[in-house]
Amino acid sequence: MKAQTGTRRRGGSDAQRSRSKKREREIIDTAAEIFHRQGYADTSVQDVADAVGILKGSLYYYIDSKEDLLFQVLVEVHEDAQGIIDDVGSMDATPLEKLYEYVRRHIDYNTRNLSKIAVYYHDFGLLGPDRRKEIVKQRAMYEDFVVSVIQEAQERGEVDDTLDARLVANAVFGTMNWIYTWYRPGGRAGPEYLGQLYAELVVNGITGATMPAALPARKRRAAKGSRASR
Amino acid sequence: MKAQTGTRRRGGSDAQRSRSKKREREIIDTAAEIFHRQGYADTSVQDVADAVGILKGSLYYYIDSKEDLLFQVLVEVHEDAQGIIDDVGSMDATPLEKLYEYVRRHIDYNTRNLSKIAVYYHDFGLLGPDRRKEIVKQRAMYEDFVVSVIQEAQERGEVDDTLDARLVANAVFGTMNWIYTWYRPGGRAGPEYLGQLYAELVVNGITGATMPAALPARKRRAAKGSRASR
Repeated sequence: MKAQTGTRRRGGSDAQRSRSKKREREIIDTAAEIFHRQGYADTSVQDVADAVGILKGSLYYYIDSKEDLLFQVLVEVHEDAQGIIDDVGSMDATPLEKLYEYVRRHIDYNTRNLSKIAVYYHDFGLLGPDRRKEIVKQRAMYEDFVVSVIQEAQERGEVDDTLDARLVANAVFGTMNWIYTWYRPGGRAGPEYLGQLYAELVVNGITGATMPAALPARKRRAAKGSRASR
Repeated sequence: MKAQTGTRRRGGSDAQRSRSKKREREIIDTAAEIFHRQGYADTSVQDVADAVGILKGSLYYYIDSKEDLLFQVLVEVHEDAQGIIDDVGSMDATPLEKLYEYVRRHIDYNTRNLSKIAVYYHDFGLLGPDRRKEIVKQRAMYEDFVVSVIQEAQERGEVDDTLDARLVANAVFGTMNWIYTWYRPGGRAGPEYLGQLYAELVVNGITGATMPAALPARKRRAAKGSRASR
């Protein structure tokens, strides 16, 4: 894990490497849970070792510092997020169908990986400057993906092309990412339901939305009513 | 400021109290900016005193601890947020017009008070348990307001009444509050434009959104198309 991705290669059989990789993910997941529960500042490497059930010395086989643990949580989230973008990007579907599917899957992931997502968004500022820069660059990639899908929908005339696609994308990320601040597993909405509801709100929200900033509010609402009959 | 609201009363004339209140707000605003810029953990009471340009001893006229400063930032945000709810709640308007106006004004406030809002959402977990509980209770109030407005719109048949109003409200808060993570003053979107755009996306998103969870995605999209002609 000292390199950005994957297990340290110190030789050994495939089976050994597979066990090592599995242990590595267990360490990262556990670190994310503890960071989320008691805060990064109040967590020690010893806390993580205790929770995993290994000696602190063994943990240092995988990492050099607590910040390494934090960074690895973020790298794992990024790899998963990239996987969703790859899947959705290669769908044979319209831009709005892709947007729907992206929101649905991203929320499914967020709700099932709350601790990692909370750490990803809340604590990334605690990284050193170089690593922080790397995370910011990765995030720009998700944003670019959503922006491009919205722009494709605009080119097809399915979304008002006067809307600023990047500002709209930020609204979409707000809807998806704010979830870590309030969602608790076991509540009345499961990942599937929430993913579908929010995908519906997002796609419905940008389909037909207009930005006649110069019109007073009451005329705007009237304009909205008339749009439905077009 | 040791009491929850307002300046310590140590007597003095109205003019003295007014000056004291003004200084108090200056201290709170400065504390918010420093917490936001360098992080609560890395900020000392001395840093705040230096930035305001008073002696640390003078700062202790207003507060007992750094946590008092944090709490006062949150109390100030709450009072402002409550003011918006009171204004919008008393409007002579339909529920959706109220929702539009609430989103617009909340975003206008968020973009003009980025540091305070960032501290409000990012750092409230650093308060002691009693004060944290108080903030959570206050937040539930804003949520209840948005939920009630959505429910009124559902009762009037303007929003699909099978949608869960509380989950929809959480999406609305995500759109509004995520702003502190990406918005920078002086960018291409000013507070007015962003408030109008997001209010439009939110109101448009819930107007006509349906939740036919049992339908496959492609039928759902078809159903959406047909809705526009109703």
